[in-house]
Amino acid sequence: MATQTRLVEVRQKVLKQNDVVARAMRQRFHEAGVYVVSLVSSPGSGKTMLLEKTLSLVREAGHRVSALVGDLATDNDAQRLARSGAPVRQITTGTVCHLEADMVEKALDGWNLAELDFLFVENVGNLVCPASYDLGEDLRLVLFSVTEGEDKPLKYPTIFNTADLAVVTKIELAEAVGFDREAAYRNIRAVRPGMEILEVSAKSGQGMEAWGQFLLARRDRSR
Amino acid sequence: MATQTRLVEVRQKVLKQNDVVARAMRQRFHEAGVYVVSLVSSPGSGKTMLLEKTLSLVREAGHRVSALVGDLATDNDAQRLARSGAPVRQITTGTVCHLEADMVEKALDGWNLAELDFLFVENVGNLVCPASYDLGEDLRLVLFSVTEGEDKPLKYPTIFNTADLAVVTKIELAEAVGFDREAAYRNIRAVRPGMEILEVSAKSGQGMEAWGQFLLARRDRSR
Repeated sequence: MATQTRLVEVRQKVLKQNDVVARAMRQRFHEAGVYVVSLVSSPGSGKTMLLEKTLSLVREAGHRVSALVGDLATDNDAQRLARSGAPVRQITTGTVCHLEADMVEKALDGWNLAELDFLFVENVGNLVCPASYDLGEDLRLVLFSVTEGEDKPLKYPTIFNTADLAVVTKIELAEAVGFDREAAYRNIRAVRPGMEILEVSAKSGQGMEAWGQFLLARRDRSR
Repeated sequence: MATQTRLVEVRQKVLKQNDVVARAMRQRFHEAGVYVVSLVSSPGSGKTMLLEKTLSLVREAGHRVSALVGDLATDNDAQRLARSGAPVRQITTGTVCHLEADMVEKALDGWNLAELDFLFVENVGNLVCPASYDLGEDLRLVLFSVTEGEDKPLKYPTIFNTADLAVVTKIELAEAVGFDREAAYRNIRAVRPGMEILEVSAKSGQGMEAWGQFLLARRDRSR
């Protein structure tokens, strides 16, 4: 259909434009010495809770940190995250199902990036659309909670492919839901061979120390 | 930006085109006497498991039933659903994050709708994009599992607004995750006042009988 073809063409232009902005942002982040981490997942996989604990953890380790949070509506998450004491800004996307590089750029307006060690960007909860948009980040996490089903990597392969690290969340519920760890790992690595996987419970604290160490080591290595 | 404006225009055309197809499908479903139910939710909220049990339940009540399942990749869900004995077809969307009416139309090719009492359509797991696409269904369920967080209706208002019924799933985990029922109901009805809500556990069977009765009564009323 003509309209569909035209939609694909226009969409490719938007994606190309996004890549240009993302590349410029990555350069800017690098020059400012800020390490940028983005989080993608389904709604309700625990991005905000993990981020809340991570902000505290990184601040306690003596680093300067801030966060941007994307949502269709409400600034609930920004309010939650601000409790950590870190500067937080909300990006309200309206009906847009993902963040784009220029939304991140606009949200950073007025912040001096050179005064930051870490910047976290929480995407809209969606396992499909965010996959196509580079945000200029250094590290992209895909979160995947034990309650979602071990088959998700096979069903949403692109998002796992474009991420650098898989974080299995809500691990405190693993037993209650009969989480099949072996199948989950096999499915993640079927989609992205050799992908690094961490397990955390932001609720019980399990795995959070290892996650913090991973993060600090990654930043050190990038400098 | 010019490209963005053009994207919005082309997208509106696609949506309008979808509405035309959906209206024709609704007419066709009605004439054939088949009651069409669609399911939307996040990935991992339990659409396939609820549908698997529902197909068996409706078949056991003497009705003729079939299902279409949308996924980006894999036909795992179609295989799971086929175990119920009902005819099932997979719609593989590739990178498209939602079903559209013409995908449903094509997938029905060769099926005699007059031989069906119920047709179920499981959308791609996504709380954003499916909201914009009418599939010609009689009843749209939005599923929402107790593990996702009570705030989801406020954060994804459009999908709750376009649905006819909210189904709270995985209710067997309510206690383990500290599900706040009152907050969840309040948030659902803040977005869609008076919305009907059912609670089910496809795993333990809790609430499944009430759900089955609801479904049969709705079909009777539509005829």
